[in-house]
Amino acid sequence: MAVKKIGSQTIKLLNPPSIISAGSIVGPKEGDGPLAQYFDKIVQDDLLGEDSWEMAESALVKEAANIALGKVNLTLDDMEYMFGGDLLNQIMSTSFAARDMKVPFFGLYGACSNFTESLSLASMIVDGGYADQVITTTSSHFSSAERQYRFPLESGNQRPLTSQWTVTGAGATIISSVGEGPYITYVTTGKVIDFGIKDAANMGAAMAPAAVDTIRAHFTDTGFKPEDYDLIITGDLGIIGHEIAMELLQKEGYNMSKVFKDCGVEVFDNERQDTHSGGSGCGCSAVVSCGYLYKELQAKKLNKILIVSTGALLSSTSSLQGESIPSIAHAVTIENKLN
Amino acid sequence: MAVKKIGSQTIKLLNPPSIISAGSIVGPKEGDGPLAQYFDKIVQDDLLGEDSWEMAESALVKEAANIALGKVNLTLDDMEYMFGGDLLNQIMSTSFAARDMKVPFFGLYGACSNFTESLSLASMIVDGGYADQVITTTSSHFSSAERQYRFPLESGNQRPLTSQWTVTGAGATIISSVGEGPYITYVTTGKVIDFGIKDAANMGAAMAPAAVDTIRAHFTDTGFKPEDYDLIITGDLGIIGHEIAMELLQKEGYNMSKVFKDCGVEVFDNERQDTHSGGSGCGCSAVVSCGYLYKELQAKKLNKILIVSTGALLSSTSSLQGESIPSIAHAVTIENKLN
Repeated sequence: MAVKKIGSQTIKLLNPPSIISAGSIVGPKEGDGPLAQYFDKIVQDDLLGEDSWEMAESALVKEAANIALGKVNLTLDDMEYMFGGDLLNQIMSTSFAARDMKVPFFGLYGACSNFTESLSLASMIVDGGYADQVITTTSSHFSSAERQYRFPLESGNQRPLTSQWTVTGAGATIISSVGEGPYITYVTTGKVIDFGIKDAANMGAAMAPAAVDTIRAHFTDTGFKPEDYDLIITGDLGIIGHEIAMELLQKEGYNMSKVFKDCGVEVFDNERQDTHSGGSGCGCSAVVSCGYLYKELQAKKLNKILIVSTGALLSSTSSLQGESIPSIAHAVTIENKLN
Repeated sequence: MAVKKIGSQTIKLLNPPSIISAGSIVGPKEGDGPLAQYFDKIVQDDLLGEDSWEMAESALVKEAANIALGKVNLTLDDMEYMFGGDLLNQIMSTSFAARDMKVPFFGLYGACSNFTESLSLASMIVDGGYADQVITTTSSHFSSAERQYRFPLESGNQRPLTSQWTVTGAGATIISSVGEGPYITYVTTGKVIDFGIKDAANMGAAMAPAAVDTIRAHFTDTGFKPEDYDLIITGDLGIIGHEIAMELLQKEGYNMSKVFKDCGVEVFDNERQDTHSGGSGCGCSAVVSCGYLYKELQAKKLNKILIVSTGALLSSTSSLQGESIPSIAHAVTIENKLN
């Protein structure tokens, strides 16, 4: 048995890498939301001067990377690998950003689980001594996602109350072998879970069982309990998915009530901003983590958190073919102090 | 500097993992080609009894995994991680296979570079002690790719002479910390390269500069020369891309003439099977590697090879928007003996 493996799905990092910097950039709606003060940059033009929503999203990726690098006086030349992904077909916005960034590149696809999928792989590569400094990027864009997965924006379709609003934004982290935290200490890798939900306008319900499966595995493997964390936050279950996940975990004996949140619930003010079930998209957990959570960790208002980004692995083709929605969630523990 | 890193893009694996098994399954056209004898399974019904090409491709992934596992009397329960990807939007065939396989899953997207992208990450995770046994999968399907990237099959479009034929097939490998080879010894990770080619029917030309960039980096980082290898084989440059890559490497002073091949050139008999510039698709380098190359390594007819899978990171959206084709190539060294 590999020595770093604990339980069946979790790695304990023996040389925990530091997240030495994080950068976040969001669009106008996110910048008008309750977490506005935590984002590094809010753009008012969500086309960012580009000709298409896809290339605008690509610009978000590059800018998030620039922000993260600038904070620690590093450049792309200092980055040994880039781990990145997004929601678009062939991860278009990330691929085109990687073209300009010129860093050895591992493209990932985990739908909205991308933020923690990239942190998982990046932290193992740094912990294992394969690199000293790597960059991760994750993005989504309301307009590129909407027209790919749902309807042309111009048709002004009515959105069901279960639907979520794809976050326009990107987050980037710099993971380093040298640093003073926050440290990535545990990585729990999810399995694909499918409870048979077919409604692509209710992705929170589809993803909740995957989040529960990974959180349960994390607790089982590590022996941690909910109260060992200051915060356990899922990616983008939204209001409906969050309630389902809370209830499912309660049934398994985990009282999450004091520590359990969801990035999709936090990122918008649902009363005022009318997003229905909350935010979604890869960018959701990326900007909430790189903006809000990272700054709360730095301010020591949070000291040990579990981020569980959640991905719905549907495609518009699989939906048209009547398939249900396979989902996945990956968890990483981030702490200010090493024991 | 991380100790395992040599040069700017290459890792020397200090505990080289073994590829203890490989499984390959192909469709009828591949099974009628020059490498037929090397494939583990040839199906005559390329729908594999499924209702769609996408789910047929998913069935190929699962069957390749079953074949690889069966050869060494292992089951999916023995696999600690799965690294997999394909060409489809949201890597649909891999995601749906992973749903049934129930192994902790890292979804990848590197277009046709997926085979070596997955070997790169899997070998670092095993070398680093994070797992003892992992599985990689890579697939493509002519019919699912054709209708996604090009035209409905029913329209019977004429294909330009520069075009390539997407391989229907899947390859799976079992990477283990314990074994007697063939060993993965070096991993060279590519950057995204774009020389401005916009013709989606000439992907060999788009990918050739990426292959050259990664091969050059590999030689520079390791000090190896072409003659140190029994074979250096690219993924799916096809006939046109192979000639371009050979010429570009010649200009840089590397005489590749005795060792340089391309999986896309080898997989079909172009005279007889009329594929124009040869084979392509993620499945191309996967089935040639898991079928032909793995068996030649086992038979000691090949002892040290460099596989350089090549990916064109275009999407149908990026093509419609007039963007050029960013490409990437990842290289792994596989050898029978450790020095």
